[in-house]
Amino acid sequence: MAKFKKYSLKRPRTTKSLNQVPGTVTYIGHKEMSEVHLEVIDYNKQHYNWYASKSPEDAFKFEEPLNITWFNINGLNNTKEIEKMGEYYDLHPLILEDIVNTGQRPKIDEYPDYIFIVAKMLYYNGDGTLRNEHISLVVGKDYVLTFQEADGDVFDGVRERISKDKGRIRNNGADYLMFALLDAIIDNYFAVIDDISDKIETFESQLFIDNSADDLVQEIQELKRTILRIRRAVFPLREVVGRLQKMDNDIIEEQTVNYIRDLYDHIIQISENIDIYREMIWSLMDMYMTTISNKMNEVMKVLTIMASIFIPLTFIAGVYGMNFEYMPELEWKYGYFAIWGIMIIVFLGMLYYFKRKKWL
Amino acid sequence: MAKFKKYSLKRPRTTKSLNQVPGTVTYIGHKEMSEVHLEVIDYNKQHYNWYASKSPEDAFKFEEPLNITWFNINGLNNTKEIEKMGEYYDLHPLILEDIVNTGQRPKIDEYPDYIFIVAKMLYYNGDGTLRNEHISLVVGKDYVLTFQEADGDVFDGVRERISKDKGRIRNNGADYLMFALLDAIIDNYFAVIDDISDKIETFESQLFIDNSADDLVQEIQELKRTILRIRRAVFPLREVVGRLQKMDNDIIEEQTVNYIRDLYDHIIQISENIDIYREMIWSLMDMYMTTISNKMNEVMKVLTIMASIFIPLTFIAGVYGMNFEYMPELEWKYGYFAIWGIMIIVFLGMLYYFKRKKWL
Amino acid sequence: MAKFKKYSLKRPRTTKSLNQVPGTVTYIGHKEMSEVHLEVIDYNKQHYNWYASKSPEDAFKFEEPLNITWFNINGLNNTKEIEKMGEYYDLHPLILEDIVNTGQRPKIDEYPDYIFIVAKMLYYNGDGTLRNEHISLVVGKDYVLTFQEADGDVFDGVRERISKDKGRIRNNGADYLMFALLDAIIDNYFAVIDDISDKIETFESQLFIDNSADDLVQEIQELKRTILRIRRAVFPLREVVGRLQKMDNDIIEEQTVNYIRDLYDHIIQISENIDIYREMIWSLMDMYMTTISNKMNEVMKVLTIMASIFIPLTFIAGVYGMNFEYMPELEWKYGYFAIWGIMIIVFLGMLYYFKRKKWL
Amino acid sequence: MAKFKKYSLKRPRTTKSLNQVPGTVTYIGHKEMSEVHLEVIDYNKQHYNWYASKSPEDAFKFEEPLNITWFNINGLNNTKEIEKMGEYYDLHPLILEDIVNTGQRPKIDEYPDYIFIVAKMLYYNGDGTLRNEHISLVVGKDYVLTFQEADGDVFDGVRERISKDKGRIRNNGADYLMFALLDAIIDNYFAVIDDISDKIETFESQLFIDNSADDLVQEIQELKRTILRIRRAVFPLREVVGRLQKMDNDIIEEQTVNYIRDLYDHIIQISENIDIYREMIWSLMDMYMTTISNKMNEVMKVLTIMASIFIPLTFIAGVYGMNFEYMPELEWKYGYFAIWGIMIIVFLGMLYYFKRKKWL
Amino acid sequence: MAKFKKYSLKRPRTTKSLNQVPGTVTYIGHKEMSEVHLEVIDYNKQHYNWYASKSPEDAFKFEEPLNITWFNINGLNNTKEIEKMGEYYDLHPLILEDIVNTGQRPKIDEYPDYIFIVAKMLYYNGDGTLRNEHISLVVGKDYVLTFQEADGDVFDGVRERISKDKGRIRNNGADYLMFALLDAIIDNYFAVIDDISDKIETFESQLFIDNSADDLVQEIQELKRTILRIRRAVFPLREVVGRLQKMDNDIIEEQTVNYIRDLYDHIIQISENIDIYREMIWSLMDMYMTTISNKMNEVMKVLTIMASIFIPLTFIAGVYGMNFEYMPELEWKYGYFAIWGIMIIVFLGMLYYFKRKKWL
Repeated sequence: MAKFKKYSLKRPRTTKSLNQVPGTVTYIGHKEMSEVHLEVIDYNKQHYNWYASKSPEDAFKFEEPLNITWFNINGLNNTKEIEKMGEYYDLHPLILEDIVNTGQRPKIDEYPDYIFIVAKMLYYNGDGTLRNEHISLVVGKDYVLTFQEADGDVFDGVRERISKDKGRIRNNGADYLMFALLDAIIDNYFAVIDDISDKIETFESQLFIDNSADDLVQEIQELKRTILRIRRAVFPLREVVGRLQKMDNDIIEEQTVNYIRDLYDHIIQISENIDIYREMIWSLMDMYMTTISNKMNEVMKVLTIMASIFIPLTFIAGVYGMNFEYMPELEWKYGYFAIWGIMIIVFLGMLYYFKRKKWL
Repeated sequence: MAKFKKYSLKRPRTTKSLNQVPGTVTYIGHKEMSEVHLEVIDYNKQHYNWYASKSPEDAFKFEEPLNITWFNINGLNNTKEIEKMGEYYDLHPLILEDIVNTGQRPKIDEYPDYIFIVAKMLYYNGDGTLRNEHISLVVGKDYVLTFQEADGDVFDGVRERISKDKGRIRNNGADYLMFALLDAIIDNYFAVIDDISDKIETFESQLFIDNSADDLVQEIQELKRTILRIRRAVFPLREVVGRLQKMDNDIIEEQTVNYIRDLYDHIIQISENIDIYREMIWSLMDMYMTTISNKMNEVMKVLTIMASIFIPLTFIAGVYGMNFEYMPELEWKYGYFAIWGIMIIVFLGMLYYFKRKKWL
Repeated sequence: MAKFKKYSLKRPRTTKSLNQVPGTVTYIGHKEMSEVHLEVIDYNKQHYNWYASKSPEDAFKFEEPLNITWFNINGLNNTKEIEKMGEYYDLHPLILEDIVNTGQRPKIDEYPDYIFIVAKMLYYNGDGTLRNEHISLVVGKDYVLTFQEADGDVFDGVRERISKDKGRIRNNGADYLMFALLDAIIDNYFAVIDDISDKIETFESQLFIDNSADDLVQEIQELKRTILRIRRAVFPLREVVGRLQKMDNDIIEEQTVNYIRDLYDHIIQISENIDIYREMIWSLMDMYMTTISNKMNEVMKVLTIMASIFIPLTFIAGVYGMNFEYMPELEWKYGYFAIWGIMIIVFLGMLYYFKRKKWL
Repeated sequence: MAKFKKYSLKRPRTTKSLNQVPGTVTYIGHKEMSEVHLEVIDYNKQHYNWYASKSPEDAFKFEEPLNITWFNINGLNNTKEIEKMGEYYDLHPLILEDIVNTGQRPKIDEYPDYIFIVAKMLYYNGDGTLRNEHISLVVGKDYVLTFQEADGDVFDGVRERISKDKGRIRNNGADYLMFALLDAIIDNYFAVIDDISDKIETFESQLFIDNSADDLVQEIQELKRTILRIRRAVFPLREVVGRLQKMDNDIIEEQTVNYIRDLYDHIIQISENIDIYREMIWSLMDMYMTTISNKMNEVMKVLTIMASIFIPLTFIAGVYGMNFEYMPELEWKYGYFAIWGIMIIVFLGMLYYFKRKKWL
Repeated sequence: MAKFKKYSLKRPRTTKSLNQVPGTVTYIGHKEMSEVHLEVIDYNKQHYNWYASKSPEDAFKFEEPLNITWFNINGLNNTKEIEKMGEYYDLHPLILEDIVNTGQRPKIDEYPDYIFIVAKMLYYNGDGTLRNEHISLVVGKDYVLTFQEADGDVFDGVRERISKDKGRIRNNGADYLMFALLDAIIDNYFAVIDDISDKIETFESQLFIDNSADDLVQEIQELKRTILRIRRAVFPLREVVGRLQKMDNDIIEEQTVNYIRDLYDHIIQISENIDIYREMIWSLMDMYMTTISNKMNEVMKVLTIMASIFIPLTFIAGVYGMNFEYMPELEWKYGYFAIWGIMIIVFLGMLYYFKRKKWL
């Protein structure tokens, strides 16, 4: 089971720090990457080409009318390069702002020549921490631009299917490429969701074995936080895919709509799971409370049994420790043994009483 | 009352394990069945024929224009056979994916020549465990294809009505057969729901008799999980039946709509019950907490009564166990008996006090 | 305050026990009545006729074109008689199924010649238990058929108004009769709701007087169950009346619509009350928890006070019960009295401490 | 802060006690007023007339075509007089029923010649109790009828504005008068809401000072009940004003719509506040639970500290109170003082331990 | 982290104190400012002018057809000046009422010549307290009027962009100025929201370190109150911006709509965060309860361990403190040491028992 990196719920503010001009392209995000890594995948039915560079200009030459071109840009720090891309592809300044603003929630905007989609990639890093990476897609008639915060993504399967010509991807247009990318993103949500499910089950069984108190509460709280964050990535995307499904323009072709419908099914499924897991996590707290109360009950029973048995006995012993001059029992020959007899009877009586009460 | 098999909430991932081409037909499910069992029921008003085989090709010969044919396929492991069926009936690749993807939620898709329905069968196995089986229906003008995960289903009543010509089924088309199958599925939900209801009542009475603590909490949690799973099977199906009702095509005939409306009524009824039982289960937790607190109260009372009575008495005895040289009471003749008198008075006084407080 | 009969939440399954043909008329209900009691009330402005019989056929003769005829059938066990009625009035088989299926939720179906309504009568029996009786109405142009589970209903007022020609009922058609019957049913909901309200108030005051623990929790739980059941009877009926209001056919006349609107107002009012009482019942549990905790606090205080006062005193006494050879205090003449002085000071000091803490 | 009179949540049943003819005018309410007080305010731009009487007939003479006439009727017990009014103004029998039925929820009905509105006046009586008074308005082209349960209302400001010709009221029609009356009703809700807010703050601070246990719980419960009742008065009125806003008839003039929109704003504002206060009240219960638990913790700590310190010391004293013949320590010269030394060390050790645990 | 000033939830009543004429302009607010401060910023592409005064009349001269003019009025106490502005710009009396009524919730009204918007500025004062300031905007074809409660706002960035000609603001019309102002308001919400987030995290960690009981509960309660207040400022504004987006008039130009869409995105993002933080705050209470219970458990364990160990030992010592004449053990030579042995065994046995139970 992977470890959750402890993210703050606080999302980066919008690009515009206070008093800034709206539409200014300023990168605000966690991941530091001073350079921009550009990757170009250009293909059609017959042809496939892969090219990597650090300056976007190099890539514009790949623009050939009959091919589908996927420009993947990693690194949002170097906003100048992003702006160059924006200029070349004639992107609205607000789009550029959204691309670099990692606090932007998933959304879809339709422009005359392209569709603009913002989503969140959730996936596990090499070290097992959960990454929540901002990704933007610009989908045109024959190109897809993707902007990611840093290197590393969930698209290796798509790359392989293009390079090795698996499935339908080489026979279809940019819209199918967009579908394949979104599909890869959503598929990774399942993995994250499954991990949450594992955690819940682990917690449930831990609760009854060894509740090292405060730690568990904090971990449950952390889990709440994580599920709320995932929800914030997934729920707006549901709307995005829902609108993609109903979009009527000539970027998305008839035959791709079926695939998008399928995508929608998957994201609904994830949303339902999130809501169920959320409910399960919330009831973990209740379970925790009951286990604490049960333990307290157990502690109290031990105390009550010990005290109820020995306090009366101590009293009896105390009585015969009194120094009255005339205490007839003290002079009896078997007084001492008689008193032991009485104490044993009291002892057994209490045991029986607690046994009958099922406290023992 | 049947036993619930402890299922994980985690549903099988979509067919596409990560990095797989969408539309690939890969079986992902719990039930292992290496072969495909095919069952063909071919009938019309006059005629009835039953045929079983292990290869779909054998079945295609039954395709006669004037009969209604029900192809029932058990076993989704052998995807090659499923693909053959798909080819023969010209099913969209995404349908085939949904047929074998046991994680798919209930849904309905309308295609020009057929309706595609995904549902979940909930029923009790021979051994009393609850099975949640994925089932897909393809309903055409004169045929119904059903795809199940494994042998064993809830359709024996339908089979009998066809073979013995009971009710209207032999006089009606494929749409009525579809209704009869969905009706059988939904009828079984009632049985499962009734079982949940029994469990809740059992728990409610157990709570007050013998709450063997953690077990009960875990069983309640398990019940929560079960009701959430059932809900996930039932709620999307409600939508499916709702859309069936309003569908306007020539597969579903006028006179069948009334029956589907009836089906809709039933599924609404189940949904309502689920929500009520859910609320009851959630309040079981509250009840449990109160019973724990009540028990704690009882334990505390015993402790308090015992300690409050005997600690003062022990103190009195302790006083007269002191070794002061000059303690006048010790020398009194009836000092000892006087002290016993005082102790008995204190004892009775405490008893009376606790009686008045209603702790005894 | 009437007693609630402890009903199970489990409603009777649909008529079709598993594997039965849909549309089969099988009575499934609690109330045993082997015969069918038929009651016919035939009236118009001038004329009034009452007739009772045990076979429906007798009743058909009352069918006169200018009169309004109310056929009331008590007893759903004898399904053959029901089927005869169905044949005579040309009722759809699914209607007959709904008439005898006491698990059917309130609903309304519009047919060309009549309206079919299912509702639930809630009323108190002679012995103070709450009855939940299934009732179906078929409303035609000049007749109303009512099917009840057993003798005994809430319609005596309507009968009297017809026989004694009170109000508008004799001047209006079958639609007004339908209104009058539904109005009587809904009026009885108010009585039941008022009773719930009384119970809540009783519980609230009991909570603070004498919480005989588990009983109360079970009774609160029972009340939850009851309110959920009433809700299930009322909420779908709201929808039924809402649709009646907007219905556009020639069974319901213009002037009756105002009355139905009034009915709708009433049922909304009941729904609102139900939701409020539900919330009140749920918070009863919270109140109960706080009273338990308060009691525990009280118990703990008694223990703490007793122990805190006498344990130190016992220690002091213990010290002077030691048998050291050289203990100077023991030999002092007033040592014993000094020690009593110290003990009294400690005693009073503790009392003062607890007084200041407001525990006494 | 005003005192809330303890109302029962139970609202009076509809006018029709069981078995009564619908549309019968029967007064069902709390306030006893055997007579009807009639007040007529007749005005136009130039002219103003005030007239009071005990019989409605006297008032009809005021009916002059060019004036706006406000008939205010206090007292719903004398239903005969109400019926006379109804006849004169040709009111539907169901309207009359709603006028006298104090259990009727706020609603609006549009009739060809007038609008019928039911609302609830919430205001503080002279003695500081909250009154919930049923009020009905009939608004025609040039008259407004208001029916109140008893003398005393929230309209004195409106009366003054008419008599002294303040603001626009004398220049506008009956629709503006209606607005002014509703505005006065809604303005009073703010006062009630503010009072609730004060109560919540008082409770919040009381909780931490002196929680005289059960009283507070009952008062919080009472507050819950009050807010639920206010909600029931306000929420349906929101709908009423919303529909007034969109009404298209010639009673409400163009220029008044802006004022009604303003009214709608106010009632939305009240609704929002109600929901917020509701949430605050509900969390009062939670806070109460935590304070109880905190107190219990404190009690337990005192007990634990007392017991943990003195029980071991008593044990030590007990050891040297044993009567063994050979106990070397007893014979030591400074044995007694050594033992005191040990006991003081144990005592200080325990104190230090509890200090470090922050229990002291 | 800034401090939250403790505001009452109680919002100022509407302008109309009871019995006042609707539409009267009366200032009701917290901030005292006896004068009106007027600020005029007049600009177009080439030209920029800034002017400050204390009487509105001075400002009217700035009205030049080709420039955009922003009139900013600080101080709502001097209602006469506000009324003059209203007259000059022909504002509806109800608008003037809303401008000075600081209790008015955010709203938007469309008039033929201008748009009227009410919003709330939330920002931190110099002293770190949160201010909630009422602001109204009137947006015409070539002017924007803003009315604020007092000096000090969130618009310094906008002022700078106009004066220094940064970004697009000087090239655009009054609609863009409106956008820039709303954008500045909404940007400040992010800062407030981030602060809430910090507080939640601080509380979460404090809970487990040192819960100085009641204080923390009160602070959590205060946080609840704050989030509810922010919600009340933000949620209606969402609706306002949503309607701005869809508004179809000639004040808002085509190219500005994209910016407003962006604004809408931001406010949705804030709303989502508010809901998440709300949930987190509510679960703080639960966490708090569990930490209290855990502490109680710890206290109880100490008590139980101390009592369970020393009570039996004291009993043993008590036995041998009895004064029976014939107690053989007392006379044994090593009786005393044997008893010490037994006591040490009991002691170690108890330790072992508690160790195994994991209480130590």
